[in-house]
Amino acid sequence: MKKKIGVVLSGCGVRDGSEIHEAVLTLLAIDQNGAEAVCMAPDMEFPEVNHLTMKETGAKRNVLVESARIARGNIRDMREVKAADLDALIFPGGFGAAKNLCDFAAKGADASVQPDVARLVREMAAANKPIGAICIAPALIAAILGKEYGPEVTIGTDAGTAAEINKTGSLHVECPVTGFVVDRKHKIVTTPAYMLATRISETAEGIEKTVKAVLDLI
Amino acid sequence: MKKKIGVVLSGCGVRDGSEIHEAVLTLLAIDQNGAEAVCMAPDMEFPEVNHLTMKETGAKRNVLVESARIARGNIRDMREVKAADLDALIFPGGFGAAKNLCDFAAKGADASVQPDVARLVREMAAANKPIGAICIAPALIAAILGKEYGPEVTIGTDAGTAAEINKTGSLHVECPVTGFVVDRKHKIVTTPAYMLATRISETAEGIEKTVKAVLDLI
Repeated sequence: MKKKIGVVLSGCGVRDGSEIHEAVLTLLAIDQNGAEAVCMAPDMEFPEVNHLTMKETGAKRNVLVESARIARGNIRDMREVKAADLDALIFPGGFGAAKNLCDFAAKGADASVQPDVARLVREMAAANKPIGAICIAPALIAAILGKEYGPEVTIGTDAGTAAEINKTGSLHVECPVTGFVVDRKHKIVTTPAYMLATRISETAEGIEKTVKAVLDLI
Repeated sequence: MKKKIGVVLSGCGVRDGSEIHEAVLTLLAIDQNGAEAVCMAPDMEFPEVNHLTMKETGAKRNVLVESARIARGNIRDMREVKAADLDALIFPGGFGAAKNLCDFAAKGADASVQPDVARLVREMAAANKPIGAICIAPALIAAILGKEYGPEVTIGTDAGTAAEINKTGSLHVECPVTGFVVDRKHKIVTTPAYMLATRISETAEGIEKTVKAVLDLI
């Protein structure tokens, strides 16, 4: 039986959803390591951003429906997914992780988290199953698990974001773009990806290592 | 100076635009081989497909604006791009290549082609600069260049599509998923990717080889 790795998507596009390169490279690394990706996303609306002008359009799109583009239609409503269905859970980055899955982008350490996301992350932590988080998504994990577990995570080197992560009760650790940070006690693996990357190959290297480290913790 | 490789996008999603995995894996292979991707797309509308239900919604989106999601905003209107700006040109697949960049999906060998796309492909062929095409995109190249050049291309093994390609004056050659076909005379490299792939790692392997073969022809 292949290991089942949940991949939580937050839309389709760096400015209002999942960072597309990070999501695809996560799916690639999972498959190349002989595991099976289980894509999921919450069924909720978000404000659309035009990725040519980088401005909000005023229109709404749906996180689950747009995430289905990255998953080629093979995606589950996150509400129906339980920790018992999975061996590990990974969050690609993109603003969707900090604007749709929670409101860390606006509220920092005081962020509230989308209920399906908070529930599944807590279930995984309680079951001692590994969690990976990429780019800005470690801030989401910090917001959910900071108080109870105080995990070590990285988003790279951004001091302002690191300070907000530390306020959640988590501990931010600096990390270069092609590296990753493992909190062995809490089985949490994080990597900066496009928080620092200037090339897709740098993002790929950090994600490859992170996915392998997550699989090694199962 | 890095080699400049044009990457023509047709939207963002397998059913109404560029196949996202193929597009990202193309960008990755270009960067890993030390070349520079120049993303571009035509500025035109297309009918939106919901990738959860796989049905048309009745709404329209814009090819250039949606393609910008894959390119992280770093994209050019194809109208402004000339063969002189590029060392090679690559087309990822997805239905967008056969529904937006041309209407091969509906009309087969009688397809008409979006004018900016037809112009740039003809310019590249006339300049003897290499062209790569992935998945269904070789049908687009066949529709543009078939009569004048009769290139050899592959979309894998689908007999109906192969027959339409042959009607353009091009020659379809069968090819396994992780392989590729090189027409050395016309400098055209093609690979089946998701026309045959059942796993993202198969798609990645064919695209890696195709991008390397395109770069070798420069």
